[in-house]
Amino acid sequence: MRKSKVYIALLHYPVYNKKMEVITTSITNLDIHDIARVSRTYEVDGFFLVHPLETQRGLAAQILDYWQRGYGAEYNPDRKEAFRIVRLASSLEEVLDMVAGEAGSRPKTVATDARIYPRTVAYEGLRQAIAEEPGAYVVLFGTGWGLAGELMEKADYVLKPIAAGSSYNHLSVRSAVAIIMDRLLGDR
Amino acid sequence: MRKSKVYIALLHYPVYNKKMEVITTSITNLDIHDIARVSRTYEVDGFFLVHPLETQRGLAAQILDYWQRGYGAEYNPDRKEAFRIVRLASSLEEVLDMVAGEAGSRPKTVATDARIYPRTVAYEGLRQAIAEEPGAYVVLFGTGWGLAGELMEKADYVLKPIAAGSSYNHLSVRSAVAIIMDRLLGDR
Repeated sequence: MRKSKVYIALLHYPVYNKKMEVITTSITNLDIHDIARVSRTYEVDGFFLVHPLETQRGLAAQILDYWQRGYGAEYNPDRKEAFRIVRLASSLEEVLDMVAGEAGSRPKTVATDARIYPRTVAYEGLRQAIAEEPGAYVVLFGTGWGLAGELMEKADYVLKPIAAGSSYNHLSVRSAVAIIMDRLLGDR
Repeated sequence: MRKSKVYIALLHYPVYNKKMEVITTSITNLDIHDIARVSRTYEVDGFFLVHPLETQRGLAAQILDYWQRGYGAEYNPDRKEAFRIVRLASSLEEVLDMVAGEAGSRPKTVATDARIYPRTVAYEGLRQAIAEEPGAYVVLFGTGWGLAGELMEKADYVLKPIAAGSSYNHLSVRSAVAIIMDRLLGDR
């Protein structure tokens, strides 16, 4: 049993578009499904869908409801179980407040990006801290073309890019979440 | 530089449905995108979309064409680069013949499943063989509820389930491909 609590936050703002302008993206149905299933598999303590717009959170709430209480829950009980982990928030601050209330202390934030930032940490060190020391971590993932620089700067830790040595590093956020959770929490 | 060639085959037949009946699934657009991007990131030698129906392969060909030669190629050159790795085949036999022609010898097949089969191999051993010994491997992934038992039995190797120790192991095939390629080919 690991000692730390681990949460995922999928941010739709502030993130970059192709031209490196800061934008707000829309919630993607398949991100919810794929990341909820990863969260349940690796026993993540909460998966926060973070969007500033109430209409977008409302749409996500309808999808969650269908798989938790609607026909989807009856058709696919495994999905119902995964969706139980999904929560909605309007901002990262709100996520951190919720987690602080649950975990008893302010969580550390862990930013992820395909770009190389000066202060990055390796997976193994963080994996060991999560396993052996009590605490709480929120791992931040950006939709669109990645988390805005201000979030990277404010984060407590910045993880090394997944494929730092490859000439190509354009994974979907769904694939990035799967790989990073496996590196931090998977048993090999 | 690794010594072995590595290919991915995404099979739409023969796979199980929820009731463990053998069925044919439809090609899913997002599987192509996510798995092509993983393939390019980890320098996979080929990603085969395998479907017995010509109409389904025709649909996939149209999607590939859009991102390789249509507006998609201009809009997103990174996607164009990833899609170059994608190939179509009607059966696993056809895939193995194509790979044998390219690699100079019959490839070994590596089956993956969330279920535990009696003869499974660990990731580390296969990772080392791929890195250090010349050869060719085709890693098989099933859509729907997983590869039919006959494919598992005929495979040269069967990989351990990703989350063998978890009480829940229902990842999307997109997440499974990402995690397994990272375990076999990723640099840590």
